[in-house]
Amino acid sequence: MKLSGRAVRLSIFVGEGDLWHHKPLYAEIVHRAHKAGMAGATVLRGLEGFGASSRIHTSHPFRLSEDLPLLIVIVDSGQRVDDFLPRLDDLDISGLVFRDEVDVIRYSAGRS
Amino acid sequence: MKLSGRAVRLSIFVGEGDLWHHKPLYAEIVHRAHKAGMAGATVLRGLEGFGASSRIHTSHPFRLSEDLPLLIVIVDSGQRVDDFLPRLDDLDISGLVFRDEVDVIRYSAGRS
Amino acid sequence: MKLSGRAVRLSIFVGEGDLWHHKPLYAEIVHRAHKAGMAGATVLRGLEGFGASSRIHTSHPFRLSEDLPLLIVIVDSGQRVDDFLPRLDDLDISGLVFRDEVDVIRYSAGRS
Repeated sequence: MKLSGRAVRLSIFVGEGDLWHHKPLYAEIVHRAHKAGMAGATVLRGLEGFGASSRIHTSHPFRLSEDLPLLIVIVDSGQRVDDFLPRLDDLDISGLVFRDEVDVIRYSAGRS
Repeated sequence: MKLSGRAVRLSIFVGEGDLWHHKPLYAEIVHRAHKAGMAGATVLRGLEGFGASSRIHTSHPFRLSEDLPLLIVIVDSGQRVDDFLPRLDDLDISGLVFRDEVDVIRYSAGRS
Repeated sequence: MKLSGRAVRLSIFVGEGDLWHHKPLYAEIVHRAHKAGMAGATVLRGLEGFGASSRIHTSHPFRLSEDLPLLIVIVDSGQRVDDFLPRLDDLDISGLVFRDEVDVIRYSAGRS
């Protein structure tokens, strides 16, 4: 696999408690990205936040915190991101999904 | 609420220990973003870092870690981000604040 | 130090378990960024993900999780990022490294 030059960063916000067929939605998204051979995917956990649902989620002690926000970042070429996006259509993601362009400096594919 | 096409991602770095009127600064920023009806806000906690203050903060064991870096990401249209920014003026944020543009692919407002 | 207008955000993905001379690679990168006087650096810990190595790392209970993904974000002017990048050459970073441009709104250097 080779990734260089101009690439696309796909950002997907989901709730930690969002499920898809009884499994975490974020794990299903990462699984599909991996299966599709995307260059990289990382899930970052938010401490607090709100999204499309307009609720404030928080990890503060003494507050309910069952649906903290997660940010999934997936990176690959624009063409591969275009090809990947339809594979998420059936997941009914309720949070923000957006993309922007980045310049790849280094990517060492194939290292174990 | 509707968000589509070109949008702005606002990135705000603060310290976890930064206070505003005895409450966490990051929580006040998220609260104001929510009150202003912004499309989304998420607080990500850094493991280590430094910012305007030039100190290295860390969560390593056996090191003081009372002011870990937090990254707050807020997304909405350029116009709404422009309108929101002055509402942060009195908070005297000491870390980096920057913006960049993204292309919204999906945003399902109004879901509970 | 002054940072305003157009700047560059450098994003570096490494594994939490990646070492450089028996110390964590991410800590060495932050240390070098600090020594070089970069405006800011923050390490974000991923909950799950995969990168150049194509393995899925996870923090789920009952799965091995010794190499969770980390995202290091470093921000400064384009010129300073250009000057800084060669200082990472000997680290043999195996994950994705990319850059994109942002517009700095606020940066209060020198605050303690």
